[in-house]
Parts: sequence; C-alpha cells; structure tokens
Amino acid sequence: MITSTANHRIRTIRSLNRRKERDALGLAYVEGIRPVVAAIESGADLETLVVASDLLTSDRAYSVLSDIKQRANPPDQHLNIEHLEVSARVFRSISNRDGPQGIAAVVRQRWERLDDVHIKDKDCWVALVEIADPGNLGSILRSCDATGVTGVIILGASADPYDRTALRASSGTTFTCRLVRSSWDSFASWARYEDVTITGASGDAIQSYRGANYGSKSVLLMGSERKGLSQEQQEACAHLVSIPMLGKTDSLNLAVATTLILYEQLHQRKSSTAVLEELT
Amino acid sequence: MITSTANHRIRTIRSLNRRKERDALGLAYVEGIRPVVAAIESGADLETLVVASDLLTSDRAYSVLSDIKQRANPPDQHLNIEHLEVSARVFRSISNRDGPQGIAAVVRQRWERLDDVHIKDKDCWVALVEIADPGNLGSILRSCDATGVTGVIILGASADPYDRTALRASSGTTFTCRLVRSSWDSFASWARYEDVTITGASGDAIQSYRGANYGSKSVLLMGSERKGLSQEQQEACAHLVSIPMLGKTDSLNLAVATTLILYEQLHQRKSSTAVLEELT
Repeated sequence: MITSTANHRIRTIRSLNRRKERDALGLAYVEGIRPVVAAIESGADLETLVVASDLLTSDRAYSVLSDIKQRANPPDQHLNIEHLEVSARVFRSISNRDGPQGIAAVVRQRWERLDDVHIKDKDCWVALVEIADPGNLGSILRSCDATGVTGVIILGASADPYDRTALRASSGTTFTCRLVRSSWDSFASWARYEDVTITGASGDAIQSYRGANYGSKSVLLMGSERKGLSQEQQEACAHLVSIPMLGKTDSLNLAVATTLILYEQLHQRKSSTAVLEELT
Repeated sequence: MITSTANHRIRTIRSLNRRKERDALGLAYVEGIRPVVAAIESGADLETLVVASDLLTSDRAYSVLSDIKQRANPPDQHLNIEHLEVSARVFRSISNRDGPQGIAAVVRQRWERLDDVHIKDKDCWVALVEIADPGNLGSILRSCDATGVTGVIILGASADPYDRTALRASSGTTFTCRLVRSSWDSFASWARYEDVTITGASGDAIQSYRGANYGSKSVLLMGSERKGLSQEQQEACAHLVSIPMLGKTDSLNLAVATTLILYEQLHQRKSSTAVLEELT
C-alpha cells in the first residue's frame, strides 16, 4: 500500500491535472465509481486502477470494485492493468472531488491520425474549431454518442477532451467516440481529398438547420464559442445553416447549438431509413 | 475615487460572490464590457456602475463606457444609479476575471411571485426542479430567450440564476426572462389552478419529444441533473416525452436536453402560425 504522497507513481498521477503532462504521457485521470465504470463500459483502455480501501464506505462500493476488477481484467484477455492500493491521505492528494469515493483510474488517451480517417457513406462526423470550454467539449461528445456520430475532429488550439471537466461532462462518452486532432489546413485538404460534405453553422446563414440537406459523408463544422467560423472556414463549407433565434441573444451555448443540428441530422437519417424500409 | 479595498461599498460588492448575501440584498454583480452592455440592453435594473479608469486601456472601452452611462441614465428618466470610480487595485479585489476590463455593475435581482403569474394561451414556460449546475441554468435561460419562452420557474433547492457562472452562461438573458422561485407543492397546486399543460422529460417515456403535442398554456418540466423527475412529478405531467439516444450514454446534458425540446415547441408554434396565415 502506498502511504506517501511523494511516491513517484502518485506524483505522476497528480501531474495528469496538467494538460502538458497529459499530452506528454498520453494518459488521463478518471475518478469516482460511476465515471470509472462508465469508462470501462465504454471500452476505455485502463492503465492503472487506484483504490483507497479506507474510503470504500458502502457495500455497494465493494461490489462495484470487484465488478470493476473483473471487467478491467477479463480472464480471456492478457491485459496488464496495474493495481495501486493507496492510503486515504494519498487518495485525497490526487483527488479532484469533495467527497472522494476511493476509486480512480488512469486511462490511455486514444487519438487517430486524420490521414487514417476515411469517411464512409452515411458517416456523420463533427469538426470543432478552437473550442475553448472543456465542459462544452464534454457535452458535445455526450451528444455525439447519443446521435450516432462516428467521430470528432478537434481543430487548432482547443480544450482537451481528457481534461477532468471535459471527462465529467462527457459522462464516459469520450471513450466511445473516435477522436482526431488536426490543424485547419490539414483538415481542409483532407476534406477535399475525401470528398466530404461540410456543413457549417453560422448566425448569418439564410438556410435554417431544420430541413437542411446535410448530404452523405457529412461533417458538421462548428466555430469557437467566441469567434464562430472565419470567412475562410465558411467558404470551405458546402452549406451554411443557422438556428433561428427570437430574443435578445445572438447565439446559443456551443454544445446546445451543436446538439440541435446533430438531432436534426439524426431525425433525417431515421426518416429516410423508415422511408426505405417502407419501400422494400 | 475609492482606493481602499476595505471600503464598505467595496466590501458589499465583494460579498455578492456569496449566494447568502445576494439573496439577502437582492443584488447581483456583473463584470466586463460585453456582459454589462448585454445586461443594460436586456433591461436590467442597475443599482451601481463600477469603473476603474486606469484599467480602461482602449478607445473602445472609453466609448463603450460613455455609451453605458448614457443608456444607464437616459435623460428622460430619473434613475438613481450610483457611479463608483475605483482604483485598479480595488477593482481587482472585486473582480472575478483574469484580465479585468475596468467596468462592472451591481444589478437588482427581479423575481415574481408564482401566485402573480397567470399563463395565457400560447404562453410557454419552463419549470426546473432542483437544477444544480449554474452553467446549465445560464445556458437554459439563453435558450429560453432564443425560443420565446415567457418565463422560468425554479423549483426547490436550486442553483442561483444571479450566480456569476450562471450570469456568464446566460449571456445577458437572465434579465430578459421572467423569473419565479417556488416549492414543488406550491407549483403543483398553482398548475392545477391555472389549468396549464405540463410536459415532463423522462428517459423512460415512449413518446418522442419530436412531434409530441405540448398543448397551449404549456409548461416544460425538467428534473435535476442527477435525479430527473420523481414519480410524483411525473404523475403531475399531462405528457411525458423522451429524447431518443443511440449510444452508450443514457442521458444528455440538462441544458442540451431542455433546448432540444424548446426548439421542437418553437418549430411547432411557427408551423401552426404559418398554416393559420395561409388559411386567412
């Protein structure tokens, strides 16, 4: 059992608070019974399970832990998941919660290279330009999971989906979605080469998001919270859509706006499938 | 010019960080050029304008300030808005920003009593049960403004719409929406008396939010982030609707889910208005 907060494994885990360390190590920190279970259920790649038995106060916590251990180490696979037993004091030194539940995990980040991504017919992707707020990013990943989005391309200097706030907001779905990081320029040439249909969201667009044609091989392009899409980015879009707004505000929260369009796309895909099923 | 951070006016403004003081004084603190302008444009009731001239670095800041002063003190009205000129150090002591812009305002909270609220035909209200996250609450107010919602009823122990995070997320729309606080029990009897149609959101509902009938005099009832709607709350609803989800997650972010339903309601209202216009 690790009882020193200065232990080098503990220092490494604590360093995952900082983006620089997360990027360098390609790891992330997930804490709490529900989040760790959600990560495992979503197929996250666990490196380390951290347990402070002194903090497991309920029978439920014990049963969840044994379940986690079993899921994390299925007998038919030869995974190499490190198990760290730590004191309550050590756990609190790495915890980001008020009432720590004594269970946390270090998971491996998963990124794909844009060049390896080949969009298929009916695939639906989302590209986010310089998204700043990790909570928004996590909420968008959650909505992407719910609407069957294949993957998310994060462009430019953006929030980190493996940030604690983003992970919490994503409710485990960070691990269900394919994730790609890229620059705008690489994305633009990739999109031309792959012949995808980019739809951008812009407050100035005449076409409403509702009833718009998003095309097959679609990528929904969303600008940053502060700046939206630049002129160049709008010009790269096959279509621009806007969300009607009646009141004083000229924009919605970014996660809210993204989800409205994703649900419209989902509705259209479901309607066309239903029509096809009726025809055959 | 106030140069002491211990000045009693400054201490009072700083105390607005805490909900207890905000509730007791019925005031809130808004900071930054854009947020203060948005609050004024939305008709917020300013009590005090706080300016640190040393921090107004750009010509734009000066022109905005003179604009703010004019808007805040229209010549045809006899408003009594206090103007505090403070030193940069004093401003930083009350600021909640990294790079303070030298402009802030103290605004009066506005609440209506539920008993005074009488819902008219075609009115659309939102009721939130024990919403916990101020960012979600602010985003919902922003979406309510955008979709023409008349007012928001906040039920039980909830986040404060005049919290700094909520105000920031609301993008000024906290001041455009009618706000009511109530207990669940008072709300339930008021709803019966006013004969409103309550639609609740529940993951278990068979009816999809899309195409559901929300009725006239409608109230959309949303449960808390963690617990959703209780059995009793669901039973008070005329309809329950759910949002279809394809992936691993069993719920969306609360602001996201609320907005999806509000935009469906807006779409239905607009469609029926268009049909009426065609008929006449």
